[in-house]
Amino acid sequence: MRQASGTLRRETPGQGLHDITREVAQWVEAQGMAQGLLTLFCTHTSASLLIQENAAPAARADLERYFARIAPEDPTAYAHDDEGPDDMPAHLRAALTQVQLTIPLNAGRLALGTWQGIYLFEHRRRPHRRTLALHLIGE
Amino acid sequence: MRQASGTLRRETPGQGLHDITREVAQWVEAQGMAQGLLTLFCTHTSASLLIQENAAPAARADLERYFARIAPEDPTAYAHDDEGPDDMPAHLRAALTQVQLTIPLNAGRLALGTWQGIYLFEHRRRPHRRTLALHLIGE
Amino acid sequence: MRQASGTLRRETPGQGLHDITREVAQWVEAQGMAQGLLTLFCTHTSASLLIQENAAPAARADLERYFARIAPEDPTAYAHDDEGPDDMPAHLRAALTQVQLTIPLNAGRLALGTWQGIYLFEHRRRPHRRTLALHLIGE
Repeated sequence: MRQASGTLRRETPGQGLHDITREVAQWVEAQGMAQGLLTLFCTHTSASLLIQENAAPAARADLERYFARIAPEDPTAYAHDDEGPDDMPAHLRAALTQVQLTIPLNAGRLALGTWQGIYLFEHRRRPHRRTLALHLIGE
Repeated sequence: MRQASGTLRRETPGQGLHDITREVAQWVEAQGMAQGLLTLFCTHTSASLLIQENAAPAARADLERYFARIAPEDPTAYAHDDEGPDDMPAHLRAALTQVQLTIPLNAGRLALGTWQGIYLFEHRRRPHRRTLALHLIGE
Repeated sequence: MRQASGTLRRETPGQGLHDITREVAQWVEAQGMAQGLLTLFCTHTSASLLIQENAAPAARADLERYFARIAPEDPTAYAHDDEGPDDMPAHLRAALTQVQLTIPLNAGRLALGTWQGIYLFEHRRRPHRRTLALHLIGE
Protein backbone atom coordinates (compact mmCIF):
# COMPACT_ATOMS: atom_id res chain seq x y z
CA MET A 1 0.00 0.00 0.00
CA ARG A 2 1.28 3.47 -0.81
CA GLN A 3 0.20 7.09 -1.14
CA ALA A 4 0.63 9.85 -3.69
CA SER A 5 -0.01 13.58 -3.19
CA GLY A 6 -0.31 16.24 -5.86
CA THR A 7 -1.69 19.61 -6.82
CA LEU A 8 -3.98 20.58 -9.67
CA ARG A 9 -4.05 24.26 -10.68
CA ARG A 10 -6.74 25.76 -12.84
CA GLU A 11 -7.23 29.31 -14.09
CA THR A 12 -10.98 29.92 -14.13
CA PRO A 13 -12.31 32.56 -16.54
CA GLY A 14 -15.17 33.47 -14.20
CA GLN A 15 -18.38 31.97 -12.79
CA GLY A 16 -19.49 28.53 -13.87
CA LEU A 17 -18.83 24.80 -13.94
CA HIS A 18 -15.38 23.97 -15.34
CA ASP A 19 -14.77 20.35 -16.32
CA ILE A 20 -11.63 18.92 -14.69
CA THR A 21 -12.38 15.22 -15.26
CA ARG A 22 -9.56 14.70 -17.75
CA GLU A 23 -6.85 16.40 -15.68
CA VAL A 24 -7.90 14.42 -12.60
CA ALA A 25 -7.99 11.11 -14.49
CA GLN A 26 -4.56 11.81 -16.02
CA TRP A 27 -3.01 12.49 -12.62
CA VAL A 28 -4.53 9.30 -11.22
CA GLU A 29 -3.29 7.26 -14.18
CA ALA A 30 0.24 8.65 -13.75
CA GLN A 31 0.36 7.20 -10.21
CA GLY A 32 0.10 3.68 -11.63
CA MET A 33 -2.27 2.22 -9.06
CA ALA A 34 -4.95 -0.38 -9.80
CA GLN A 35 -7.09 -0.08 -6.66
CA GLY A 36 -7.37 2.83 -4.29
CA LEU A 37 -9.13 5.92 -3.03
CA LEU A 38 -8.80 9.36 -4.61
CA THR A 39 -9.54 12.55 -2.67
CA LEU A 40 -9.88 15.98 -4.29
CA PHE A 41 -9.79 18.96 -1.97
CA CYS A 42 -10.55 22.52 -3.09
CA THR A 43 -8.50 24.92 -0.97
CA HIS A 44 -10.87 27.88 -1.40
CA THR A 45 -14.10 29.16 0.18
CA SER A 46 -15.54 30.81 -2.95
CA ALA A 47 -15.10 27.89 -5.36
CA SER A 48 -16.23 24.30 -4.88
CA LEU A 49 -16.45 20.82 -6.41
CA LEU A 50 -19.40 19.08 -8.01
CA ILE A 51 -19.96 15.81 -9.81
CA GLN A 52 -22.68 16.30 -12.42
CA GLU A 53 -24.00 15.59 -15.90
CA ASN A 54 -21.18 15.58 -18.47
CA ALA A 55 -23.25 15.33 -21.65
CA ALA A 56 -25.88 18.09 -21.79
CA PRO A 57 -24.58 21.69 -21.75
CA ALA A 58 -28.16 22.81 -20.99
CA ALA A 59 -28.03 20.93 -17.68
CA ARG A 60 -24.84 22.77 -16.69
CA ALA A 61 -26.39 26.12 -17.58
CA ASP A 62 -29.50 25.26 -15.53
CA LEU A 63 -27.30 24.30 -12.55
CA GLU A 64 -25.43 27.61 -12.75
CA ARG A 65 -28.69 29.58 -13.00
CA TYR A 66 -30.21 27.65 -10.10
CA PHE A 67 -27.37 28.41 -7.68
CA ALA A 68 -27.40 32.05 -8.83
CA ARG A 69 -31.08 32.13 -7.96
CA ILE A 70 -31.10 30.43 -4.53
CA ALA A 71 -27.98 32.32 -3.33
CA PRO A 72 -28.39 35.58 -5.24
CA GLU A 73 -26.26 38.69 -5.46
CA ASP A 74 -28.16 41.23 -3.39
CA PRO A 75 -26.37 44.24 -1.84
CA THR A 76 -29.07 44.53 0.83
CA ALA A 77 -28.96 40.90 1.97
CA TYR A 78 -25.46 40.41 3.37
CA ALA A 79 -23.25 42.10 5.96
CA HIS A 80 -20.07 40.71 4.35
CA ASP A 81 -19.15 42.34 1.02
CA ASP A 82 -15.42 43.03 1.40
CA GLU A 83 -14.73 41.91 -2.16
CA GLY A 84 -17.92 43.07 -3.87
CA PRO A 85 -21.50 41.87 -4.41
CA ASP A 86 -20.40 38.41 -5.64
CA ASP A 87 -18.34 37.77 -2.47
CA MET A 88 -20.93 36.46 -0.01
CA PRO A 89 -23.04 34.57 -2.61
CA ALA A 90 -19.80 32.77 -3.54
CA HIS A 91 -19.39 31.50 0.04
CA LEU A 92 -23.05 30.42 0.16
CA ARG A 93 -22.86 28.51 -3.13
CA ALA A 94 -19.67 26.81 -1.95
CA ALA A 95 -21.40 25.87 1.34
CA LEU A 96 -24.36 24.35 -0.57
CA THR A 97 -22.03 22.16 -2.65
CA GLN A 98 -18.71 20.62 -1.47
CA VAL A 99 -15.03 21.43 -1.21
CA GLN A 100 -14.09 17.76 -1.07
CA LEU A 101 -14.80 14.66 -3.17
CA THR A 102 -13.59 11.10 -2.56
CA ILE A 103 -13.83 8.59 -5.39
CA PRO A 104 -12.87 4.89 -5.37
CA LEU A 105 -10.41 3.59 -7.97
CA ASN A 106 -10.98 0.07 -9.22
CA ALA A 107 -9.15 -1.90 -11.93
CA GLY A 108 -7.18 1.29 -12.64
CA ARG A 109 -10.32 3.36 -13.29
CA LEU A 110 -12.21 5.94 -11.22
CA ALA A 111 -15.67 4.68 -10.23
CA LEU A 112 -17.43 7.55 -12.05
CA GLY A 113 -20.68 6.65 -13.79
CA THR A 114 -21.08 7.04 -17.54
CA TRP A 115 -22.70 10.47 -17.26
CA GLN A 116 -20.64 11.83 -14.38
CA GLY A 117 -18.05 14.56 -14.85
CA ILE A 118 -15.98 16.27 -12.15
CA TYR A 119 -16.40 20.05 -12.11
CA LEU A 120 -14.62 22.91 -10.43
CA PHE A 121 -17.46 25.31 -9.64
CA GLU A 122 -16.16 28.89 -9.75
CA HIS A 123 -18.42 31.26 -7.85
CA ARG A 124 -16.57 34.56 -8.38
CA ARG A 125 -17.14 36.80 -11.41
CA ARG A 126 -13.49 37.60 -12.11
CA PRO A 127 -10.88 35.05 -13.26
CA HIS A 128 -9.18 33.24 -10.39
CA ARG A 129 -6.25 30.86 -10.03
CA ARG A 130 -7.59 27.87 -8.11
CA THR A 131 -5.62 25.10 -6.38
CA LEU A 132 -6.86 21.59 -5.65
CA ALA A 133 -5.01 19.15 -3.42
CA LEU A 134 -5.01 15.56 -4.70
CA HIS A 135 -4.40 12.46 -2.59
CA LEU A 136 -4.41 8.84 -3.66
CA ILE A 137 -3.95 5.82 -1.40
CA GLY A 138 -3.90 2.27 -2.72
CA GLU A 139 -1.68 -0.09 -4.66
CA MET B 1 -3.43 -2.95 5.53
CA ARG B 2 -5.70 -4.06 2.71
CA GLN B 3 -8.54 -2.89 0.48
CA ALA B 4 -11.89 -4.29 -0.62
CA SER B 5 -14.07 -3.07 -3.49
CA GLY B 6 -17.69 -3.91 -4.17
CA THR B 7 -20.94 -2.89 -5.75
CA LEU B 8 -24.36 -2.37 -4.21
CA ARG B 9 -27.34 -2.42 -6.56
CA ARG B 10 -30.77 -1.16 -5.59
CA GLU B 11 -34.01 -0.98 -7.56
CA THR B 12 -35.75 2.20 -6.48
CA PRO B 13 -39.55 2.33 -6.84
CA GLY B 14 -39.49 6.10 -7.48
CA GLN B 15 -38.73 9.35 -5.66
CA GLY B 16 -37.76 9.30 -2.01
CA LEU B 17 -35.27 8.28 0.66
CA HIS B 18 -34.52 4.55 0.54
CA ASP B 19 -32.74 3.09 3.58
CA ILE B 20 -29.59 1.15 2.62
CA THR B 21 -27.96 1.06 6.08
CA ARG B 22 -28.37 -2.69 6.50
CA GLU B 23 -27.00 -3.65 3.07
CA VAL B 24 -24.00 -1.38 3.58
CA ALA B 25 -23.31 -2.71 7.10
CA GLN B 26 -23.58 -6.30 5.86
CA TRP B 27 -21.07 -5.70 3.07
CA VAL B 28 -18.66 -4.06 5.52
CA GLU B 29 -19.03 -6.93 8.00
CA ALA B 30 -18.31 -9.48 5.26
CA GLN B 31 -14.90 -7.86 4.65
CA GLY B 32 -13.82 -8.83 8.18
CA MET B 33 -11.97 -5.63 9.07
CA ALA B 34 -11.84 -4.09 12.55
CA GLN B 35 -10.59 -0.60 11.71
CA GLY B 36 -10.82 1.26 8.42
CA LEU B 37 -12.49 3.78 6.14
CA LEU B 38 -15.61 3.05 4.09
CA THR B 39 -16.48 5.08 0.99
CA LEU B 40 -19.86 4.91 -0.76
CA PHE B 41 -20.04 6.42 -4.22
CA CYS B 42 -23.31 6.86 -6.14
CA THR B 43 -22.57 6.56 -9.88
CA HIS B 44 -25.55 8.68 -10.98
CA THR B 45 -26.40 12.37 -11.39
CA SER B 46 -30.12 12.10 -10.59
CA ALA B 47 -29.85 10.10 -7.35
CA SER B 48 -27.70 10.88 -4.32
CA LEU B 49 -26.71 9.83 -0.81
CA LEU B 50 -27.80 11.25 2.51
CA ILE B 51 -27.23 10.37 6.16
CA GLN B 52 -30.34 11.31 8.12
CA GLU B 53 -32.81 10.50 10.88
CA ASN B 54 -33.57 6.77 10.96
CA ALA B 55 -36.40 6.76 13.50
CA ALA B 56 -39.15 9.22 12.50
CA PRO B 57 -40.88 8.56 9.17
CA ALA B 58 -42.32 12.11 9.39
CA ALA B 59 -38.80 13.54 9.25
CA ARG B 60 -38.10 11.61 6.04
CA ALA B 61 -41.35 12.83 4.48
CA ASP B 62 -40.50 16.43 5.46
CA LEU B 63 -37.04 16.07 3.88
CA GLU B 64 -38.55 14.78 0.64
CA ARG B 65 -41.11 17.60 0.56
CA TYR B 66 -38.44 20.20 1.30
CA PHE B 67 -36.19 19.20 -1.61
CA ALA B 68 -39.25 19.03 -3.88
CA ARG B 69 -40.02 22.60 -2.84
CA ILE B 70 -36.59 24.24 -3.17
CA ALA B 71 -35.78 22.49 -6.46
CA PRO B 72 -39.29 22.19 -7.92
CA GLU B 73 -40.60 20.65 -11.10
CA ASP B 74 -41.42 23.62 -13.31
CA PRO B 75 -41.55 23.30 -17.12
CA THR B 76 -40.83 27.02 -17.51
CA ALA B 77 -37.76 27.12 -15.25
CA TYR B 78 -35.22 24.90 -16.99
CA ALA B 79 -33.65 24.62 -20.44
CA HIS B 80 -32.77 20.94 -19.91
CA ASP B 81 -35.76 18.58 -19.97
CA ASP B 82 -34.60 15.74 -22.21
CA GLU B 83 -36.15 13.12 -19.95
CA GLY B 84 -39.20 15.02 -18.71
CA PRO B 85 -40.12 17.59 -16.05
CA ASP B 86 -38.45 15.62 -13.24
CA ASP B 87 -35.09 15.51 -15.10
CA MET B 88 -33.50 18.84 -14.17
CA PRO B 89 -34.91 19.01 -10.60
CA ALA B 90 -33.28 15.58 -10.08
CA HIS B 91 -29.85 17.00 -10.97
CA LEU B 92 -30.41 20.00 -8.69
CA ARG B 93 -31.48 17.86 -5.71
CA ALA B 94 -28.43 15.62 -6.26
CA ALA B 95 -26.18 18.71 -6.38
CA LEU B 96 -27.63 19.99 -3.09
CA THR B 97 -26.91 16.69 -1.35
CA GLN B 98 -23.93 14.33 -2.07
CA VAL B 99 -22.93 11.49 -4.35
CA GLN B 100 -20.22 10.35 -1.94
CA LEU B 101 -20.02 9.45 1.76
CA THR B 102 -16.97 8.36 3.72
CA ILE B 103 -17.48 6.75 7.14
CA PRO B 104 -14.83 5.53 9.61
CA LEU B 105 -14.96 1.93 10.84
CA ASN B 106 -13.87 1.32 14.41
CA ALA B 107 -13.89 -1.90 16.47
CA GLY B 108 -15.66 -3.55 13.52
CA ARG B 109 -18.52 -1.02 13.51
CA LEU B 110 -19.34 1.98 11.30
CA ALA B 111 -19.11 5.26 13.24
CA LEU B 112 -22.79 6.10 12.59
CA GLY B 113 -24.62 7.78 15.45
CA THR B 114 -27.63 6.17 17.11
CA TRP B 115 -30.13 8.09 14.99
CA GLN B 116 -28.21 8.05 11.69
CA GLY B 117 -29.30 5.95 8.74
CA ILE B 118 -27.73 5.84 5.26
CA TYR B 119 -30.19 6.67 2.49
CA LEU B 120 -30.14 6.41 -1.27
CA PHE B 121 -32.09 9.49 -2.35
CA GLU B 122 -33.92 8.76 -5.61
CA HIS B 123 -34.87 11.96 -7.44
CA ARG B 124 -36.61 10.49 -10.51
CA ARG B 125 -40.32 9.61 -10.57
CA ARG B 126 -40.00 6.30 -12.38
CA PRO B 127 -38.29 3.19 -10.92
CA HIS B 128 -34.53 3.08 -11.57
CA ARG B 129 -31.77 0.55 -11.10
CA ARG B 130 -29.05 2.34 -9.14
CA THR B 131 -25.44 1.29 -8.62
CA LEU B 132 -23.21 2.32 -5.74
CA ALA B 133 -19.47 1.65 -5.65
CA LEU B 134 -18.15 0.55 -2.25
CA HIS B 135 -14.54 0.81 -1.11
CA LEU B 136 -13.04 -0.18 2.22
CA ILE B 137 -9.44 0.29 3.31
CA GLY B 138 -8.16 -0.89 6.67
CA GLU B 139 -7.26 -4.05 8.52
CA MET C 1 1.05 2.52 6.62
CA ARG C 2 -1.06 2.77 9.76
CA GLN C 3 -4.38 4.10 11.09
CA ALA C 4 -5.48 6.16 14.07
CA SER C 5 -9.02 6.60 15.38
CA GLY C 6 -10.26 9.18 17.84
CA THR C 7 -13.19 11.16 19.15
CA LEU C 8 -13.65 14.92 19.42
CA ARG C 9 -16.33 16.17 21.80
CA ARG C 10 -17.67 19.70 21.77
CA GLU C 11 -20.32 21.37 23.90
CA THR C 12 -22.16 23.79 21.63
CA PRO C 13 -23.85 26.80 23.28
CA GLY C 14 -26.60 26.86 20.63
CA GLN C 15 -27.06 27.56 16.92
CA GLY C 16 -24.14 28.68 14.83
CA LEU C 17 -20.75 27.90 13.31
CA HIS C 18 -18.25 26.78 15.94
CA ASP C 19 -14.58 26.73 14.92
CA ILE C 20 -12.93 23.35 15.57
CA THR C 21 -9.87 23.82 13.34
CA ARG C 22 -7.39 23.95 16.22
CA GLU C 23 -8.70 20.86 18.04
CA VAL C 24 -8.68 18.89 14.78
CA ALA C 25 -5.16 20.03 13.86
CA GLN C 26 -3.89 19.17 17.35
CA TRP C 27 -5.31 15.66 17.19
CA VAL C 28 -3.76 15.13 13.75
CA GLU C 29 -0.39 16.42 14.94
CA ALA C 30 -0.46 14.07 17.93
CA GLN C 31 -0.66 11.07 15.57
CA GLY C 32 2.79 11.94 14.18
CA MET C 33 2.09 11.24 10.52
CA ALA C 34 3.61 13.17 7.62
CA GLN C 35 1.31 12.08 4.78
CA GLY C 36 -2.22 10.75 5.01
CA LEU C 37 -5.95 11.22 4.83
CA LEU C 38 -8.07 12.64 7.65
CA THR C 39 -11.80 11.97 7.91
CA LEU C 40 -14.13 13.83 10.27
CA PHE C 41 -17.54 12.33 10.82
CA CYS C 42 -20.34 14.09 12.73
CA THR C 43 -22.49 11.45 14.45
CA HIS C 44 -25.65 13.60 14.56
CA THR C 45 -28.52 14.52 12.24
CA SER C 46 -29.12 18.04 13.58
CA ALA C 47 -25.53 19.30 13.49
CA SER C 48 -23.12 19.20 10.55
CA LEU C 49 -19.65 20.12 9.28
CA LEU C 50 -18.60 22.98 7.04
CA ILE C 51 -15.32 24.34 5.76
CA GLN C 52 -15.64 28.10 5.36
CA GLU C 53 -14.09 31.57 5.71
CA ASN C 54 -12.01 31.80 8.88
CA ALA C 55 -11.23 35.52 8.83
CA ALA C 56 -14.44 37.57 8.54
CA PRO C 57 -16.99 37.15 11.36
CA ALA C 58 -19.54 38.91 9.10
CA ALA C 59 -19.27 36.04 6.60
CA ARG C 60 -20.07 33.52 9.33
CA ALA C 61 -23.07 35.57 10.48
CA ASP C 62 -24.30 35.79 6.85
CA LEU C 63 -23.95 32.01 6.47
CA GLU C 64 -25.96 31.40 9.64
CA ARG C 65 -28.69 33.84 8.53
CA TYR C 66 -28.81 32.30 5.05
CA PHE C 67 -29.42 28.76 6.29
CA ALA C 68 -32.00 30.08 8.76
CA ARG C 69 -33.77 31.70 5.82
CA ILE C 70 -33.76 28.83 3.28
CA ALA C 71 -34.71 26.20 5.88
CA PRO C 72 -36.81 28.33 8.25
CA GLU C 73 -38.55 27.54 11.49
CA ASP C 74 -42.22 27.41 10.57
CA PRO C 75 -44.72 25.45 12.68
CA THR C 76 -47.04 25.07 9.68
CA ALA C 77 -44.43 23.69 7.27
CA TYR C 78 -43.35 20.39 8.79
CA ALA C 79 -45.04 17.21 10.01
CA HIS C 80 -42.06 16.34 12.24
CA ASP C 81 -41.72 18.54 15.34
CA ASP C 82 -41.12 16.01 18.12
CA GLU C 83 -38.46 18.21 19.72
CA GLY C 84 -39.86 21.66 18.92
CA PRO C 85 -39.93 24.15 16.03
CA ASP C 86 -36.12 24.02 15.53
CA ASP C 87 -36.17 20.21 15.13
CA MET C 88 -37.01 19.76 11.45
CA PRO C 89 -35.12 22.86 10.19
CA ALA C 90 -32.05 21.37 11.93
CA HIS C 91 -32.33 18.18 9.85
CA LEU C 92 -32.79 20.23 6.66
CA ARG C 93 -29.76 22.45 7.34
CA ALA C 94 -27.67 19.34 8.10
CA ALA C 95 -28.86 17.76 4.82
CA LEU C 96 -27.87 20.88 2.85
CA THR C 97 -24.35 20.80 4.29
CA GLN C 98 -22.34 17.65 5.23
CA VAL C 99 -21.81 15.27 8.12
CA GLN C 100 -18.45 14.15 6.74
CA LEU C 101 -15.25 15.85 5.59
CA THR C 102 -12.08 14.21 4.27
CA ILE C 103 -8.89 16.28 4.09
CA PRO C 104 -5.45 15.24 2.78
CA LEU C 105 -2.42 15.57 5.04
CA ASN C 106 0.85 16.48 3.35
CA ALA C 107 4.26 17.23 4.88
CA GLY C 108 2.59 16.94 8.29
CA ARG C 109 -0.01 19.63 7.51
CA LEU C 110 -3.70 19.48 6.58
CA ALA C 111 -4.29 20.72 3.02
CA LEU C 112 -6.58 23.55 4.19
CA GLY C 113 -6.29 26.82 2.25
CA THR C 114 -5.19 30.03 3.97
CA TRP C 115 -8.76 31.21 4.53
CA GLN C 116 -10.35 27.85 5.34
CA GLY C 117 -11.51 26.94 8.82
CA ILE C 118 -13.32 23.75 9.91
CA TYR C 119 -16.65 24.43 11.60
CA LEU C 120 -19.10 22.36 13.58
CA PHE C 121 -22.46 23.78 12.50
CA GLU C 122 -24.93 23.48 15.39
CA HIS C 123 -28.54 23.68 14.15
CA ARG C 124 -30.41 23.33 17.47
CA ARG C 125 -31.25 26.30 19.70
CA ARG C 126 -30.33 24.67 23.02
CA PRO C 127 -26.78 23.65 24.03
CA HIS C 128 -25.82 20.16 22.87
CA ARG C 129 -22.94 17.79 23.49
CA ARG C 130 -21.69 16.77 20.02
CA THR C 131 -19.38 13.89 19.12
CA LEU C 132 -17.20 13.69 16.02
CA ALA C 133 -15.39 10.52 14.96
CA LEU C 134 -11.86 11.10 13.65
CA HIS C 135 -9.91 8.72 11.43
CA LEU C 136 -6.44 9.12 10.00
CA ILE C 137 -4.69 6.74 7.64
CA GLY C 138 -1.16 7.32 6.40
CA GLU C 139 2.42 7.18 7.60
